[in-house]
Amino acid sequence: MNKEELINQIKIKQSFLCIGLDADIEKIPQHLLDEEDPIFEFNKQIIDATKDLCVAYKPNVAFYESLGAKGWESLQKTIEYIPNDIFTIADAKRGDIGNTSKMYANAFFKTLSFDSITVAPYMGEDSVSPFLEFNDKWVILLALTSNKGADDFQFFNNGDEKLFEKVLKQSQKWGNDRNLMYVVGATRPEMFRAIRNIVPDNFLLVPGVGAQGGSLCKYGMNKDCGLLVNSSRGIIYASNGENFAEVARNSALIIQKEMAILLEEIRA
Amino acid sequence: MNKEELINQIKIKQSFLCIGLDADIEKIPQHLLDEEDPIFEFNKQIIDATKDLCVAYKPNVAFYESLGAKGWESLQKTIEYIPNDIFTIADAKRGDIGNTSKMYANAFFKTLSFDSITVAPYMGEDSVSPFLEFNDKWVILLALTSNKGADDFQFFNNGDEKLFEKVLKQSQKWGNDRNLMYVVGATRPEMFRAIRNIVPDNFLLVPGVGAQGGSLCKYGMNKDCGLLVNSSRGIIYASNGENFAEVARNSALIIQKEMAILLEEIRA
Repeated sequence: MNKEELINQIKIKQSFLCIGLDADIEKIPQHLLDEEDPIFEFNKQIIDATKDLCVAYKPNVAFYESLGAKGWESLQKTIEYIPNDIFTIADAKRGDIGNTSKMYANAFFKTLSFDSITVAPYMGEDSVSPFLEFNDKWVILLALTSNKGADDFQFFNNGDEKLFEKVLKQSQKWGNDRNLMYVVGATRPEMFRAIRNIVPDNFLLVPGVGAQGGSLCKYGMNKDCGLLVNSSRGIIYASNGENFAEVARNSALIIQKEMAILLEEIRA
Repeated sequence: MNKEELINQIKIKQSFLCIGLDADIEKIPQHLLDEEDPIFEFNKQIIDATKDLCVAYKPNVAFYESLGAKGWESLQKTIEYIPNDIFTIADAKRGDIGNTSKMYANAFFKTLSFDSITVAPYMGEDSVSPFLEFNDKWVILLALTSNKGADDFQFFNNGDEKLFEKVLKQSQKWGNDRNLMYVVGATRPEMFRAIRNIVPDNFLLVPGVGAQGGSLCKYGMNKDCGLLVNSSRGIIYASNGENFAEVARNSALIIQKEMAILLEEIRA
């Protein structure tokens, strides 16, 4: 999917919601365990119930890998089931030396036909650039993550800039706003402003924002919206009863309505 | 496998060689393509031919993932085929927020029963520590990689220390020399010396050293040897004829003999 198509979907759906398909065999509703492929069945029902409310789905690959080859099959069925007009993100956080990153790119862009993949920057340019060589495919580079451990290295400071700022600046030489997005777990408005100074035009994937986080998001928006805001557990595990998909839809709807208001504001 | 067992294997085999099982369907000998699982058949013959000469095998997971569920099955068969007295490394370079890293740990330590996994440090402590909670399992943390892109961020300097040195120091608080090794692609003797000042007792995984690299390695050794030196293509693709396994053995044997001499030197 290219940038115009993504922006168009955001306009049509009045949403920049990304739903994290982190299907955990220990958390999905019990009644699904009788299905031949419970993980896929769970994802299928979540997708059916929410596909008009979100513009992206993001399976975290760890959940599938932990089930071995069978999990990999569930992931393949899931990606094939997602409608083509929805942006897909392999949350895989890969990154290796050049020829090996190319293998990962093939795995996620060809074998599984994802639109994008999250990539870790530690190994530098030649670990990232093999993912940038595919038409209308995207790297979503980790810049500032939202976990506690982000403090350990991402704020390492050489006096002029912090490591995550260096990652933003340096990677602007490798890709552009049509093949490169960033994971940005900003927790304060001024962090979004500083980041937008460095990368005004790139889309940002903002993790872990629930129904309460909307007011913060506006500081990260640009004229195209420029955000994909992810919610995983708050939607997919909103209920573990037989009506889980309906409850998931209601949770997604609350977020989508907030997003519609924010999108009105940037248009105004 | 615990530290004493690994040190013991190094003594018995007079080797600290790790063989990278980077089986690429486009590079393995043509005659194997008729087999039901060519990748596993290739690995099986390489393992049979070299298992007395190396102390570790390291499949790079990218090569298997690029084949989807089928590749994952080849990886599972490979890890099950490797004898128990050989240390196994999932070269996966994973790392995610806490509960997700736990999923990856389950994937590689339980579903696949590897002894160790390579982990990227960018997301900090809570992305690494879930891998450290398993008995006799190891994290091999990326510190200084050997690729060109290592220059982009790993030498980022706050005046007191470089990022890779910060990674070494900080991570010493998370684990110890019985569950934590480091990837160190040192290219000069003084780099090994500086690294050994920070982590005197941890094993180091040294990538990409061929038959010529032996003389450099001695600067990284400690009293227990403390090194696993990897060779991938130089061994497994030494020939692509029908006698590939025999030629691979000869290549491994040349390296093992050099290693035996280095091990004599540290004992002397």
